[in-house]
Amino acid sequence: MPINIAIIGASGYTGAELIRILLLHPHAAIKILTGDSSAGKNVEDIYPHLRNRGLPKLTALEKTDFSSIDLAFCCLPHGTTQTVIANLPKHLKIIDLSADFRLADPAVYKEWYGHTHQAVKLQKEAVYGLTEVARAEIKKARLVANPGCYPTSAAVPLVPLLKAKAILPGSIIVDAKSGVTGAGRKVAQNMLFAEIDGGINAYGVGAHRHAPEIDQNLSRAAGKKIIATFTPHLVPMNRGILSTIYVQLAGKYTVTGLRAILLKAYEHEPFVQILPLGLAPSTHQVRGTNNCAVGVFADRAPGRAILVSAIDNLVKGASGQAVQNMNVMFGWPETTGLQLSAVFP
Amino acid sequence: MPINIAIIGASGYTGAELIRILLLHPHAAIKILTGDSSAGKNVEDIYPHLRNRGLPKLTALEKTDFSSIDLAFCCLPHGTTQTVIANLPKHLKIIDLSADFRLADPAVYKEWYGHTHQAVKLQKEAVYGLTEVARAEIKKARLVANPGCYPTSAAVPLVPLLKAKAILPGSIIVDAKSGVTGAGRKVAQNMLFAEIDGGINAYGVGAHRHAPEIDQNLSRAAGKKIIATFTPHLVPMNRGILSTIYVQLAGKYTVTGLRAILLKAYEHEPFVQILPLGLAPSTHQVRGTNNCAVGVFADRAPGRAILVSAIDNLVKGASGQAVQNMNVMFGWPETTGLQLSAVFP
Amino acid sequence: MPINIAIIGASGYTGAELIRILLLHPHAAIKILTGDSSAGKNVEDIYPHLRNRGLPKLTALEKTDFSSIDLAFCCLPHGTTQTVIANLPKHLKIIDLSADFRLADPAVYKEWYGHTHQAVKLQKEAVYGLTEVARAEIKKARLVANPGCYPTSAAVPLVPLLKAKAILPGSIIVDAKSGVTGAGRKVAQNMLFAEIDGGINAYGVGAHRHAPEIDQNLSRAAGKKIIATFTPHLVPMNRGILSTIYVQLAGKYTVTGLRAILLKAYEHEPFVQILPLGLAPSTHQVRGTNNCAVGVFADRAPGRAILVSAIDNLVKGASGQAVQNMNVMFGWPETTGLQLSAVFP
Amino acid sequence: MPINIAIIGASGYTGAELIRILLLHPHAAIKILTGDSSAGKNVEDIYPHLRNRGLPKLTALEKTDFSSIDLAFCCLPHGTTQTVIANLPKHLKIIDLSADFRLADPAVYKEWYGHTHQAVKLQKEAVYGLTEVARAEIKKARLVANPGCYPTSAAVPLVPLLKAKAILPGSIIVDAKSGVTGAGRKVAQNMLFAEIDGGINAYGVGAHRHAPEIDQNLSRAAGKKIIATFTPHLVPMNRGILSTIYVQLAGKYTVTGLRAILLKAYEHEPFVQILPLGLAPSTHQVRGTNNCAVGVFADRAPGRAILVSAIDNLVKGASGQAVQNMNVMFGWPETTGLQLSAVFP
Repeated sequence: MPINIAIIGASGYTGAELIRILLLHPHAAIKILTGDSSAGKNVEDIYPHLRNRGLPKLTALEKTDFSSIDLAFCCLPHGTTQTVIANLPKHLKIIDLSADFRLADPAVYKEWYGHTHQAVKLQKEAVYGLTEVARAEIKKARLVANPGCYPTSAAVPLVPLLKAKAILPGSIIVDAKSGVTGAGRKVAQNMLFAEIDGGINAYGVGAHRHAPEIDQNLSRAAGKKIIATFTPHLVPMNRGILSTIYVQLAGKYTVTGLRAILLKAYEHEPFVQILPLGLAPSTHQVRGTNNCAVGVFADRAPGRAILVSAIDNLVKGASGQAVQNMNVMFGWPETTGLQLSAVFP
Repeated sequence: MPINIAIIGASGYTGAELIRILLLHPHAAIKILTGDSSAGKNVEDIYPHLRNRGLPKLTALEKTDFSSIDLAFCCLPHGTTQTVIANLPKHLKIIDLSADFRLADPAVYKEWYGHTHQAVKLQKEAVYGLTEVARAEIKKARLVANPGCYPTSAAVPLVPLLKAKAILPGSIIVDAKSGVTGAGRKVAQNMLFAEIDGGINAYGVGAHRHAPEIDQNLSRAAGKKIIATFTPHLVPMNRGILSTIYVQLAGKYTVTGLRAILLKAYEHEPFVQILPLGLAPSTHQVRGTNNCAVGVFADRAPGRAILVSAIDNLVKGASGQAVQNMNVMFGWPETTGLQLSAVFP
Repeated sequence: MPINIAIIGASGYTGAELIRILLLHPHAAIKILTGDSSAGKNVEDIYPHLRNRGLPKLTALEKTDFSSIDLAFCCLPHGTTQTVIANLPKHLKIIDLSADFRLADPAVYKEWYGHTHQAVKLQKEAVYGLTEVARAEIKKARLVANPGCYPTSAAVPLVPLLKAKAILPGSIIVDAKSGVTGAGRKVAQNMLFAEIDGGINAYGVGAHRHAPEIDQNLSRAAGKKIIATFTPHLVPMNRGILSTIYVQLAGKYTVTGLRAILLKAYEHEPFVQILPLGLAPSTHQVRGTNNCAVGVFADRAPGRAILVSAIDNLVKGASGQAVQNMNVMFGWPETTGLQLSAVFP
Repeated sequence: MPINIAIIGASGYTGAELIRILLLHPHAAIKILTGDSSAGKNVEDIYPHLRNRGLPKLTALEKTDFSSIDLAFCCLPHGTTQTVIANLPKHLKIIDLSADFRLADPAVYKEWYGHTHQAVKLQKEAVYGLTEVARAEIKKARLVANPGCYPTSAAVPLVPLLKAKAILPGSIIVDAKSGVTGAGRKVAQNMLFAEIDGGINAYGVGAHRHAPEIDQNLSRAAGKKIIATFTPHLVPMNRGILSTIYVQLAGKYTVTGLRAILLKAYEHEPFVQILPLGLAPSTHQVRGTNNCAVGVFADRAPGRAILVSAIDNLVKGASGQAVQNMNVMFGWPETTGLQLSAVFP
């Protein structure tokens, strides 16, 4: 007997990706799709690739009856989400893909998002849903704050190393390269094909909103305050994040030791692949999957190591991890509906 | 109880795509992967995106024991396939993705492939596997010649119209645009990223090997010899074929009538989507799926109509239709393992 | 002594391309750049690639003094251009890159653009600027209507053949594939990188505004009314139009005869390349240049031929041909400032 | 009176790019193009975009008479170049685009290239041609070793800062992202469009041959041995390198101070653009030009700064800097033939 699912804000890319995944999930029935500017339309009117899949029409959020719904995925923009979720019926389990409930400290939220948090009580209730790290809390949560794509790509390789004190907490540099869907389906000149194709640029250098979320993850793992250096880049491709991470080894650790820690930490994890030493992952190999592939490298500079992680920003970085969290919350095997083969080429 | 499957020539793109699809198929167990130049390697050595999927190592064809295998997909290059298949054990069902058994007339084969066919007897036995057209024969076949990607994209919209005598057989022009995977994984200068990206070109103009296959399909449907005009183009994208087809209407037919014929013909077909009049398909909407989407348009020039069909060349144009044919041959619902959601973006 | 140039509507792609070309032109001094929404900005604020090139700031059109200007290129959107140009000082020579003055018949304009033409008298004065065809009239013109990109790609190969009565006027099909810059820099969801990359689609099938312009060119050449079939497609690339053109041979003409006509017609033309028989052009080879490369092919279907033309839509299809027309209007060698090398890869 | 130029190994991308640039150079006449596997062919047979440019046929190197040649650009692969150049007539000035003469220390060369250097004497004579740094030596040189693309992108922002002792020499991390043409025109599976498009990967992590060249540049500037951390990445685009560089500030330096040093160092340099503080360059803005654009950023982590440089790897990273060096060697203004406008989009 499947659970009934609503996707709030279904007209964006994370909404479409949730639909792609849930259509193959044996325990999920998509019952409600909301999208205020698309209300009344069929899904194929905004997503031709979802024609003939038996999906409900898009509805306006305020006219939606959630009484029969078990779980809502919330795919609304940052800032507006918190009020929407605060007003949803309390019987609903919620997985929120926005940034609204990710930062535990309301002061940090205000600093980076420019306004006072509107649902501080809910924020305290929310569980940060990096599944491999917080599985036990997610299992009991009503509201899960699904992690950001960049923070996920950084936390998977770094959290076990910081917990093991194998790297110096003050030394971490995350140089991340993302496909364009990380910016969502917003219509902006700098996201036009003609402006993106054939070139690459950095953006938000030293000032991206995912930086405090990365810090929060790393600080929790290290047990002390960490400020990581983080530079995102926009790559002419649709999907994928590759994070190249520079660290300094603690004490007598070597890259072999680092890799051993990661192998041990992720020994039973179905979605994390620690590659053989010296093998570099490509985002190609995780495209369309919930996997995170991690390579470990010695640097030429003594005492340094380089980690490279690859995820699909729409899957492990958003909708896939959301479904993984759903599986945890409902007690199903974590890989249910997520054994997607990568799409290559 | 799944059947045991071999993929002969698994190191190319159609082999990888078969693996992607079959990994989600409930009745298929991949037991053998052959690849002569990759023999002894793990799949992830040649296809990192297939890491950790429990697949067998690649083996050399001549050392392979097929005794426990029920079905072999053959993904070898044109020309060499016919001899290989002639030497396979007779208990095997075979779906051949090469062009070797597609052309019924050995003289035509010789004309276009430059050598006498080496397995004429087998060629007579082979069933041309355009599933929607030849389902009954495929069901009884031991050897299925899986259709080419261009011919599939042309036949789906045209066969019902020719059968209904709704268009003039002498008027057909197929202008087809393909992604690069249509050329396989062969290493050639003109397939380098730097040579492909940012431009488009026609090739094989008036002289492409898929032309006689297109003719054969159309001639069978019309009950008379047809020579279609066919121009393939190479588009800077990985997957997809868009065929824009120009026809002259027969008698009093209109585009509405044409669409009605297609709607009727494909009424119960799960993979063919006849779009509302005037709506143009994109290859985006079929990417990763076994679907063929067809748009129907009136032309400004009186008495002419335009049809546009979109497929994924690696799925409906190759590995997907092959699995569809497997489902027919083994009596499973045709959509088994093929209810893939399109991957967009 | 260079002439003084204004570019009206300089913030779009054709404006930027004019700047790119004119910066290397020995007789052109860019004195005015207008852009209403960008007024007051430096060029590098909207086009970082034009930093440090000594260009004037963007100004608002209505505050612009044209008294010292010799020639204005007008790069405004269709529909608004006609009124703007009607109000410009009469001493100005004008090359208009919009569609406003291309269609000689106001009734046809109204049919396709949905409103009565606001400057019919000017339209009568305007010369349609397909340089190779109308050089003599352009030389004397004050207002040149610069041809559309699709019409240019169709007219170059077809006009000489129609003049020579070598092809049947009723048989012409133009299947055209364009890069995204043909749509300008407008911000629209369907032009986002994520929506364009990795796929192809037809659009405006049987109903594109360039169709009557194509008809007008072909009808003039044939001396009789022609309705051509025309289908544009959107290709995931920035620049280039490839038009694949299907024709029926008249009388005893062969493709060799067709090619001979084209060779003769373009014998002294610096920008038209008639390729050896059977050689297919790619848009790669004309990227960044004012060239039009044309291939001629026999079809398998008797009595038919296939022509393939390649241009850069922003150069020969817009700003390059505009500069070519400027050279004609001012009596300079036609190649002045246009001997650009193609940019490949 | 132009000088006579030979391009040895003209069939690769740097050779084609040299031709593109030199065709617009007023003092350069291309007289010889060698290409052993293409000997006897016309340029348009291997580079259709260079049709009709009046270029000589390709010849075999060993049959080439250099007696009338003033300058040879050498575009051969690493390793074979040194012997070829050693055997060229001594009257020739030579600019070598390979890596053969870049590393001053033969032991370092042997370590990274796997064989003893075959022309050690010549190597001592060779001047490393980073124009902005070594202008005076280049002016007097007979043999210039043209810098690598990655080293150029790293040296331009770092050399003045190291000379000023404004950053800590032990802290430098260069995370570089390159288009595919950096790998040349070699035919390899991993450079196929289908393998590159839609994804990104790191390669040569901690072990790329450009690392010692980067070290050499930085060490010379710092006056002490530096080992930089360097990670190259392959981006799905044709041209461009973006290097994101992480440094630690020395003493009381701030990013404003860093930028002031760069502004001063490049005050009179026509090809180096130091952007306003906080503005990030894109490779789009330098595409097709000899420019290097540099952005300077404060990091969130105290005491750190981030520099981002953008070049076109085929121009400032190869053929453009080669022509810049030619201009220096022959006493022409350095921008001669290099005032190319960027090609955007």
